[in-house]
Amino acid sequence: MSRGEVAQTAKAYQVPAIERSMLILQALQQHGPLGLADLVSETGLSRSTCYYLVRTMAKAQLVESDEETRKYHLGIGLVELGSAATEQLGYLGVIKRYIFDLLEEMDATFVIYRRLDRGRVAIVDKVEPSHRLRVTVPLGTTLPIQGGSFGRCFLAYDHPTAVREILNAGLQRYTEQSITDVDRFLSEINGVRERGWALDREGFALGVSTVAAPMLRDGQPLLVVGAVAMAATLADDATVERWGRRLREICDSASTALHRHPRGSSGLDGGVALDER
Amino acid sequence: MSRGEVAQTAKAYQVPAIERSMLILQALQQHGPLGLADLVSETGLSRSTCYYLVRTMAKAQLVESDEETRKYHLGIGLVELGSAATEQLGYLGVIKRYIFDLLEEMDATFVIYRRLDRGRVAIVDKVEPSHRLRVTVPLGTTLPIQGGSFGRCFLAYDHPTAVREILNAGLQRYTEQSITDVDRFLSEINGVRERGWALDREGFALGVSTVAAPMLRDGQPLLVVGAVAMAATLADDATVERWGRRLREICDSASTALHRHPRGSSGLDGGVALDER
Repeated sequence: MSRGEVAQTAKAYQVPAIERSMLILQALQQHGPLGLADLVSETGLSRSTCYYLVRTMAKAQLVESDEETRKYHLGIGLVELGSAATEQLGYLGVIKRYIFDLLEEMDATFVIYRRLDRGRVAIVDKVEPSHRLRVTVPLGTTLPIQGGSFGRCFLAYDHPTAVREILNAGLQRYTEQSITDVDRFLSEINGVRERGWALDREGFALGVSTVAAPMLRDGQPLLVVGAVAMAATLADDATVERWGRRLREICDSASTALHRHPRGSSGLDGGVALDER
Repeated sequence: MSRGEVAQTAKAYQVPAIERSMLILQALQQHGPLGLADLVSETGLSRSTCYYLVRTMAKAQLVESDEETRKYHLGIGLVELGSAATEQLGYLGVIKRYIFDLLEEMDATFVIYRRLDRGRVAIVDKVEPSHRLRVTVPLGTTLPIQGGSFGRCFLAYDHPTAVREILNAGLQRYTEQSITDVDRFLSEINGVRERGWALDREGFALGVSTVAAPMLRDGQPLLVVGAVAMAATLADDATVERWGRRLREICDSASTALHRHPRGSSGLDGGVALDER
């Protein structure tokens, strides 16, 4: 089959109504409740197509319409499907989907760390690029929390007293780049809390640098995602900065997708909604 | 327009591809990962229809396919849409959707309670049947926690010492049916923890009975849903039992939809997954 034929076959595989309904769902996801006219202009679909689609989606509770405002919003059917999808993917499955997006743009091996106890961290999963030359780590490896950027991502959210206790027990010199001064280590940790990501340049293993960011839940790191690369790859600050920001972004996206904090009128995250309606 | 014409028009509004894709999503939601042959037999769709639909849905990440097992499962796109839907509906919006299912089968006014502090509860929302004769309550009303079945749903998950302190301050006699004996009140509370729902027969207001169940999050009541009815409606135990079980069910469904606890290989809810893969 020629490339053209492959493309044509691939196109023929698509069901237009599904693609169109995705346009509607994405518009609602992005903009919140929209009326039919807004949906038409956001999706570029005809008014009648839009109408048939939302009617059908409303029946499946993928969207719901507000009787008063005549606007459509995402429905309870999606809450249930999203819940089932999360069960099927698992936490790691969800964060890994976001990591896949980074494979193209960052020449790194992605490692997911979980904290075991105050002083130790375990590697619980990884996403590796397919090319041969890369830094790799065995799953299940246990690492000391002072070891690299990953550890600082956990420590940054600990109580300062607890951090001092861990650090006062002594900072190990893994390489000549390891930070062994407690005050310098603490200032690195402060930097992590401000930026939302951490950098380690050959402080844990010579020739290997890591940028890492925590995925937070209720303000605490649930897990940490690290991008492990050859030191040369992370030699310039612009790359480090870009990687740090991207890791921060995907951790935030995964966190939002997994742990919703509905705002507004629910009255369950702050005051009580006592309005008479 | 005759009824027949209305039905026909309503049918014409439906887009078959959306309805068919819902059959696929529901099969995956219900059974977990399925191969194409299983999808065909579960949905009753033809093999080629199924194939085109999953291909299109895979492109939108509504489903994903596992390269090894060749099975399809729900995808990350649904996690994101579900997250956005929860934001748009809010907690109360979600629990209310489940309550709507009860309107047909239970002749009650449904009240959602939130705890204000140790001793007080507020009515934060309600769902009422449309017929005229019903028990109603104003939103925002603050009620004492010893007042009815709703309060016992909160107290059942408090520390026993805290409960004793609240009860030792004195149990009020609202009606001649009120439980004013501390030990009997405590045994009612134990019953709630075992069954997952509570009953109050005219103990707070004469002529009014209530069945209530807590919606739990991490083992604590986030809110309580009560079915408030004329005492006569809840005169027989079979009805009480049925209402209690149904309230328990919808609270569990809403809780699962809102607060997922993925099981299995994620390694984040228990031990660490240390398998080499």
